[in-house]
This record gives sequence, structure tokens and C-alpha cells, in this order.
Amino acid sequence: MDAAELENIFLLVLVTLLSVVQNVFFALKVEKECKGHNSKQHSADFERLLCANRNCMDTYPTFLAVLWCAGICLSQAPAAFAGIIYLVVRQKYFVGYMGQSCQSIPGFLFGKRILFFLSLMCIVGIINYLLLNYGGSDYKDYVQTITKAASTLLLLP
Amino acid sequence: MDAAELENIFLLVLVTLLSVVQNVFFALKVEKECKGHNSKQHSADFERLLCANRNCMDTYPTFLAVLWCAGICLSQAPAAFAGIIYLVVRQKYFVGYMGQSCQSIPGFLFGKRILFFLSLMCIVGIINYLLLNYGGSDYKDYVQTITKAASTLLLLP
Amino acid sequence: MDAAELENIFLLVLVTLLSVVQNVFFALKVEKECKGHNSKQHSADFERLLCANRNCMDTYPTFLAVLWCAGICLSQAPAAFAGIIYLVVRQKYFVGYMGQSCQSIPGFLFGKRILFFLSLMCIVGIINYLLLNYGGSDYKDYVQTITKAASTLLLLP
Repeated sequence: MDAAELENIFLLVLVTLLSVVQNVFFALKVEKECKGHNSKQHSADFERLLCANRNCMDTYPTFLAVLWCAGICLSQAPAAFAGIIYLVVRQKYFVGYMGQSCQSIPGFLFGKRILFFLSLMCIVGIINYLLLNYGGSDYKDYVQTITKAASTLLLLP
Repeated sequence: MDAAELENIFLLVLVTLLSVVQNVFFALKVEKECKGHNSKQHSADFERLLCANRNCMDTYPTFLAVLWCAGICLSQAPAAFAGIIYLVVRQKYFVGYMGQSCQSIPGFLFGKRILFFLSLMCIVGIINYLLLNYGGSDYKDYVQTITKAASTLLLLP
Repeated sequence: MDAAELENIFLLVLVTLLSVVQNVFFALKVEKECKGHNSKQHSADFERLLCANRNCMDTYPTFLAVLWCAGICLSQAPAAFAGIIYLVVRQKYFVGYMGQSCQSIPGFLFGKRILFFLSLMCIVGIINYLLLNYGGSDYKDYVQTITKAASTLLLLP
């Protein structure tokens, strides 16, 4: 694509690449742990690692879809920022995963707040587009400023 | 992105958001069911729920890829319509899931017809593009009208 | 979208469609194998098939994300070529899968080299964009030629 179009998405591409690197890190971790055991005796640690990996992989498409929709509909900088925070949360979740097979399920939605924020960005972007198209008023600049300010709230623990 | 580009994809974004909401609903359902049991004794109901959830998650990236390709290549309205029907079918599949661990596999492709329709839209869109580029004839308007009419056929049970 | 925009992505759409067809093929294979057994006695063959299918599905979103990023950031022809090689590798992996439940994990990253090549394309594309934007020099043509030549190296076993 042209450089003009790349301008609107290159931060999203960077976050996507980072998430891919993280996926590969998770997979290598599982692979390394696996080689230390034989196939008959899965230890509890290994089960936990597998479970954490599966939970992360299950939410991955959802995360990617929301990230790109938010970035395209409204503004890429807050979306990429929220994406990086999501990756940090996922890293902490994976490394510190100490649950058992059932306790892992509640962790399925470990980045609820971030996914909610990104979804909200999509909705605001679409409402703004509809207002612009049918009402003639364009609040995109205000909305983008508010979104950038609001994205820092995600840093709160 | 500009409003002009958003015009071609905002229905797809809406369907994607709906599917994300549905994913979160599935995950919360699994989480709620999980808290009612302890981790040693998985009941058969819980196994079924987990299995239904995994089947839905397995097809999710495939669905997203086909939805967006169809919407971008040909026309967004029929693609978004087919996507919503897919979500309804998935909801029915998840709620009414009564199979056992092996019978769940046949349900893996529960939205076969819709995925086939979306794939067909992609192929028609690309063929139309190639005809336009190398043959000089543009059937896009006819094809879009036919597609819109054909998408209502998906409503048949 | 317009034909001008479709020009830059139609090869990616074709590869995506091929990968969807392959996913459906895998799912039908699992479904067929499943009907030959009853639900109580999973044979070792069936377990292997399920495991191979899950490994393929786990890497699928990662593959799609990298493929599209590489195709959009730099050039679609080498990205689509690498994508097709990835699909061939995946097919060989699935058909010839003879591992046991633990040995399957190392196979998680069966297309490491191709994913690495696609990630490299993304990074080169973004660096080129930043150079163009802030330095004023545009190496995109050179980079695209080098990438096309380099993509043939993926054919090496």
C-alpha cells in the first residue's frame, strides 16, 4: 500500500508483531518444558503451562479483531497503547500462572478492561461516522483527544 | 482512516464487535459454570460446555477471515448479513449443545453453509476484479445485486 | 472497495481462502475419523489427529496476522508465496503426524522459518516507511526486489 495508508496503521502492525513474538515465546516455553518430561507422566506444572497457553491462544483472535477495529475506526495511537498494556497483562498472567485446571477458566478474560476499552473505541468511531454522514457534524477531533486522555486510565491497576 | 474508507467497512466492524460480545458471553458462561464445581470432579455438563466453547473458538479465526475478505472483495452488506446469521447459528449451537466429547467434533463445522457462501463471495469478487483488469468488463453492479438477493437464501433452515 | 485497492491484496485474499479450505479439510478429516469410533474408546490414532488439528488451529491466527501485515506493509507477492509454502508445510505436518501427546508440542511452531520471514518483511516495511517519512529517502523498490528474490530461499528444505 501507499505510504499515506501505512501512516494510519503502522503502530497497529508493530503491536501485532510484538504479540506474535510473545506467542512464539509462549510456544517455546511450552516446548522446553515438554522436553523435560516423558509423555506418560505429565506433571502438574506442565498441565498448568499448557492450560495458560491455551487460554492465551483462545483470546488471541478476539484481541486482534478488537485492536484493529478500534485502530481503524477511531485512532491508532490509543489503540496501540491499549494493545501494549494488554500484552504486558498477558505476560504477567502467563508467567505467574499458578491455577489448576478449573481455576484457569476464570482467567480466560484476563484483559477484560482493555478489551472493553477497545470495543468502546470502535463504537464511538462508528457513531461518529454515522453522525458525520447523516447529521453533518464531525466530533472526531474532540473524540480522539478524549480517547488519548482516557487511554492513560488503563495504567491504573 | 477517512470517513470515505470507513463507509465500506463499518457494517463489518459492527458484526465483528457483536461476535466479540458473544465470545465474552461464552467465556462468562464457562466461568460461571466452573465456579459451581470443584476442580476434581468435572461433571459431564461442564465438559460439554468446555467442548462447545472450544469448538466455537476454533472456528472463530476462520470465520473472521472469510467475513472480512468477502466484505472487502465484493460488498459489505450481504457479508455482514451472513455474519449475523452465523452468530445466530453459533448461539443456537452453544446453548443447545448436548453432545458428548466425541459427538462434538461433527459440530465443528456448524456454519458450513454460511462459510461456503462467504468464500463464494470472495471468489466472485476476485474473478470480477481480474475480468475488470484484464478484460475491461465490469460486472460488479450485477454481481452485487445477485449477491444481496442470494444472501436471503441463507435464512432457509 | 475500489479495484485500485483490491489490486494490492487480491493475492492475500486467495491465500486466505486456500487456508480456509485447508481448515475445512482438517475438520472433515477429524469428523470422519470420529464417526468410526464410539465416544468411550478414543484410539491413539484419533488422539493424534485431534492433537495435530489443535496445533494447526493454535497457530492459525498468528499466521494470518503476520501474512496480512507483511503483505500490506511491503509487498503482496512474496508474502502470498510464503503463505502458500506455509500451507504446504502445514499439510505435510498434518498428514504425516505420528507423534504422541507430548511430542506434539514441539511441532507447535512447524513453520518457524516462514513466520520469521514474514515478520522480517513487516519490520523492513515499517523501517522503510519511517525512512521515507522522516529521512526523505525511499528504498521500497530495492527492498521489494530483494524480498522477491529472498522469498525463493524458503524453497530450500
